[in-house]
Amino acid sequence: MTSHILLINCPDERGLVYKITGVLVKYNLNIIRNGEFVERDFNHFFMRTEFSGEVDPETLLRDVKEALPAAADIKLTDRRKKDIVILVTKEHHCLSDLLIRHAFQELNARILAVISNHDVLADLTQKFAIPFHYISHEGKSREVHEAEVTQAIQQYQPDFVVLAKYMRILSPEFVAPYANRLINIHHSFLPAFVGANPYAQAYERGVKIIGATAHFVNEQLDQGPIIAQNVIPVDHTQSAKEMAQAGRDVEKIVLAKSLKMVFDEQVFVYRNKTILLN
Amino acid sequence: MTSHILLINCPDERGLVYKITGVLVKYNLNIIRNGEFVERDFNHFFMRTEFSGEVDPETLLRDVKEALPAAADIKLTDRRKKDIVILVTKEHHCLSDLLIRHAFQELNARILAVISNHDVLADLTQKFAIPFHYISHEGKSREVHEAEVTQAIQQYQPDFVVLAKYMRILSPEFVAPYANRLINIHHSFLPAFVGANPYAQAYERGVKIIGATAHFVNEQLDQGPIIAQNVIPVDHTQSAKEMAQAGRDVEKIVLAKSLKMVFDEQVFVYRNKTILLN
Amino acid sequence: MTSHILLINCPDERGLVYKITGVLVKYNLNIIRNGEFVERDFNHFFMRTEFSGEVDPETLLRDVKEALPAAADIKLTDRRKKDIVILVTKEHHCLSDLLIRHAFQELNARILAVISNHDVLADLTQKFAIPFHYISHEGKSREVHEAEVTQAIQQYQPDFVVLAKYMRILSPEFVAPYANRLINIHHSFLPAFVGANPYAQAYERGVKIIGATAHFVNEQLDQGPIIAQNVIPVDHTQSAKEMAQAGRDVEKIVLAKSLKMVFDEQVFVYRNKTILLN
Amino acid sequence: MTSHILLINCPDERGLVYKITGVLVKYNLNIIRNGEFVERDFNHFFMRTEFSGEVDPETLLRDVKEALPAAADIKLTDRRKKDIVILVTKEHHCLSDLLIRHAFQELNARILAVISNHDVLADLTQKFAIPFHYISHEGKSREVHEAEVTQAIQQYQPDFVVLAKYMRILSPEFVAPYANRLINIHHSFLPAFVGANPYAQAYERGVKIIGATAHFVNEQLDQGPIIAQNVIPVDHTQSAKEMAQAGRDVEKIVLAKSLKMVFDEQVFVYRNKTILLN
Repeated sequence: MTSHILLINCPDERGLVYKITGVLVKYNLNIIRNGEFVERDFNHFFMRTEFSGEVDPETLLRDVKEALPAAADIKLTDRRKKDIVILVTKEHHCLSDLLIRHAFQELNARILAVISNHDVLADLTQKFAIPFHYISHEGKSREVHEAEVTQAIQQYQPDFVVLAKYMRILSPEFVAPYANRLINIHHSFLPAFVGANPYAQAYERGVKIIGATAHFVNEQLDQGPIIAQNVIPVDHTQSAKEMAQAGRDVEKIVLAKSLKMVFDEQVFVYRNKTILLN
Repeated sequence: MTSHILLINCPDERGLVYKITGVLVKYNLNIIRNGEFVERDFNHFFMRTEFSGEVDPETLLRDVKEALPAAADIKLTDRRKKDIVILVTKEHHCLSDLLIRHAFQELNARILAVISNHDVLADLTQKFAIPFHYISHEGKSREVHEAEVTQAIQQYQPDFVVLAKYMRILSPEFVAPYANRLINIHHSFLPAFVGANPYAQAYERGVKIIGATAHFVNEQLDQGPIIAQNVIPVDHTQSAKEMAQAGRDVEKIVLAKSLKMVFDEQVFVYRNKTILLN
Repeated sequence: MTSHILLINCPDERGLVYKITGVLVKYNLNIIRNGEFVERDFNHFFMRTEFSGEVDPETLLRDVKEALPAAADIKLTDRRKKDIVILVTKEHHCLSDLLIRHAFQELNARILAVISNHDVLADLTQKFAIPFHYISHEGKSREVHEAEVTQAIQQYQPDFVVLAKYMRILSPEFVAPYANRLINIHHSFLPAFVGANPYAQAYERGVKIIGATAHFVNEQLDQGPIIAQNVIPVDHTQSAKEMAQAGRDVEKIVLAKSLKMVFDEQVFVYRNKTILLN
Repeated sequence: MTSHILLINCPDERGLVYKITGVLVKYNLNIIRNGEFVERDFNHFFMRTEFSGEVDPETLLRDVKEALPAAADIKLTDRRKKDIVILVTKEHHCLSDLLIRHAFQELNARILAVISNHDVLADLTQKFAIPFHYISHEGKSREVHEAEVTQAIQQYQPDFVVLAKYMRILSPEFVAPYANRLINIHHSFLPAFVGANPYAQAYERGVKIIGATAHFVNEQLDQGPIIAQNVIPVDHTQSAKEMAQAGRDVEKIVLAKSLKMVFDEQVFVYRNKTILLN
């Protein structure tokens, strides 16, 4: 018996749950976990159902489509590992954490490659037998550099691209092809401290809590849908550098948590927000 | 259009969601919020559905019963305010917080009376025009005192009894009639520091975090189903008394949060645990 | 034996602690609690010393002044209750919490009066026998209204003015006389969501955590030195209104915590930041 | 100019800070950071001072000793890296985290060796070029096995031994030589869930928060002085296994945080508690 995940979102109307579960009952499938949500500003319905049982996916999908409004967005998937490529610059902590989780089969993903505009993380990456692409940005226009990175990514055809402290601002052209497939960890509690050097900004402002935000990347800097956030307390004794050190642990945990949810198909994106169902 | 809450729990089997939503569809009812959960140790199914629409409750209940296994526990209710009686001793903070929330209609409950074995909180209670019963335990056996308290409670026929820092250990005989209707706030992060003076115990042990636990009361001291918990950091500079002061804010917030969930019909009790659906 | 608090800040130089404790030793005083900090960007020294013993304050102050550089800011005080005036609009939760703490002697302050531009909290305030001034802003220029409020405040000569959800933007002229004596609770995790309706902003942005910030008020909106912050998790199921409800408990606790520190003389303000010593 | 750390603890008496800072002034040393604390149950004084400047350590120590009561415990040290040996069983997450921090010079320690009663973490350890000792307990008495482990540790003469998920109960004989030098991460919020399988215990009890505790090990199981604790929320949807997975991130962060404090000489142990000064 295999386990499947059915993901549905569509304008809300009466009877949706009844219709969907009706199809599952027809094929004698067993619901393991079921989550629904209706967004009330725009009356949009979301449902995530994990089920087990023997069924032909094509047939099931066809029946669900027939049962639902034409506008419904329907996806039938399974728990298969996602293929990912990771972009980094010089900081290791998020990459280290992902490489370790990957090595111990905890990530529900295959890391196909690591790409960086610096070479300092090459050794670390190669310890774990993952290809490392060093694509320096020195002496290149943003356009040229991004084209090289894009080309490197494309040869792996990843499901997701993860920016694990990639410290370059991306052009809308780079981002566009990866809608809802490009995930960034930002080292602040967004929307506080958008842009460069958020720890220096936090230190300057004298905040008592700092944080990290994992989000999908869209065309506007640090404005994409937020997946997960977390915080830690800081105080006046900590320099900007010490805040950055303390923040690393939050960053790596928040990124890993958000990736777990994304790879486990628990994240819907709707109008610049995420809906998390599990 | 009125809003209803349907609460169901029963041994799990295939098609339960389909059958239940089928009845809702039949009466053209509109699901506002729906939560389900299947407990996997004993394969037990829980469902909480908020819906709106015109329907005769008796008819609906009958149909749901017919659709479900005979063993199903089914409850159809609404958002009506619950009637409660609060027991206290000398500490005011939980009572104060509940009286204020009550005065501003934030509690989804009617406080019918406050009962205490001391009279120090009489003035506070009466500021808010709530009856206060002072039933001293001095010179009385536990049996006699509990009988007097029980009698005072019974005249109000409350839905729930809230122990808002009632510092007397209750006999199984007192507790028995209030299964899943008697809620206590314990001033520690249970199961750490069961029993008397948990802050002194926490201080003695040198913990770095203290907490509070709201739970249903059963026959065994501090062993009932946990509804909500929260914590705050402490350090070596704090005395046991300062920990107790700092802990008060956690206690009052945790108690209020747990009562909100209970009064909003979001709490199932199953085998000494709570399942929280909203 | 009385307890004193000595507060010193000055440009850092070698031997400051030695010189200060030398004076305390000279008078045979007993240090109860001592905290120091040197800010490293501008090399500024801060020290807070609680001590007990019999000493003439004038004499002690004179000796400390002689021991320290001329530029030193020196304050000798005690644990006396601060006089405060509270400004509110319609929301009760912060005021309620302060009135209750005041009634039970937990605030280390005397609430001399509550002033509001609405009358909805008059009943609550009067339950606790505190004068309530209703000064409507209707049909008045900001200038005129602020002059009336200022006049009402001035008759009480308070040590501190507390904005406990006072929903009017204050002019620099109003604020100026209360440097480091005017404390506001802002219902967001500053600097995120400056200005009006932060919960609506937070909902719109889809954040996963919301917070509250207590800060001193300066001439720039929501830009003053931060005293305390705290946060709670939120999710996609919560409307802006539900976030606001959930946030109230954070607001009241953060405000009370910051007031405790300020009234207990634990807060230094330096270049738009706070240094907390206890 | 080198940086030093002076650690003093002794029965409290008047003038201690004056006397100690007097010695520092005499040698024209510059205090970088200073923390003091007086424990009030037993009137015991603690002071940690970081200072820079040119001074002969022997001379300084002699002067400090002369200035203080004979009973004073005085230590003059620097920020040198500590030598450590790590013991593990099968779980990798704490070891992984420490190896990574070590590889990037973030641990303020040299990992001299990893010792395990299983061989599953040999590959991981050797990726980072650290000696791995596989000392199986199979077919050996506890006494014999512990003797072998002790012998393996002793060849490295470590400053500290870290139990990074070492799942064997240690005899008092094993523990005794490492007073305040043997640090364990326990996978619960102590004192809740002492002993084996705390996540299963937590699941069974239905708690809403789980945690981890880093502590020095003494002769009694899970009773040693607590250095750091942290928690995360859990809910009814999580199995004991899922709680254990979620708890791993807390465990590794709490262990790393506690080690940072210990290696940076910020931890005093006094009567089964820790005093953290920085």
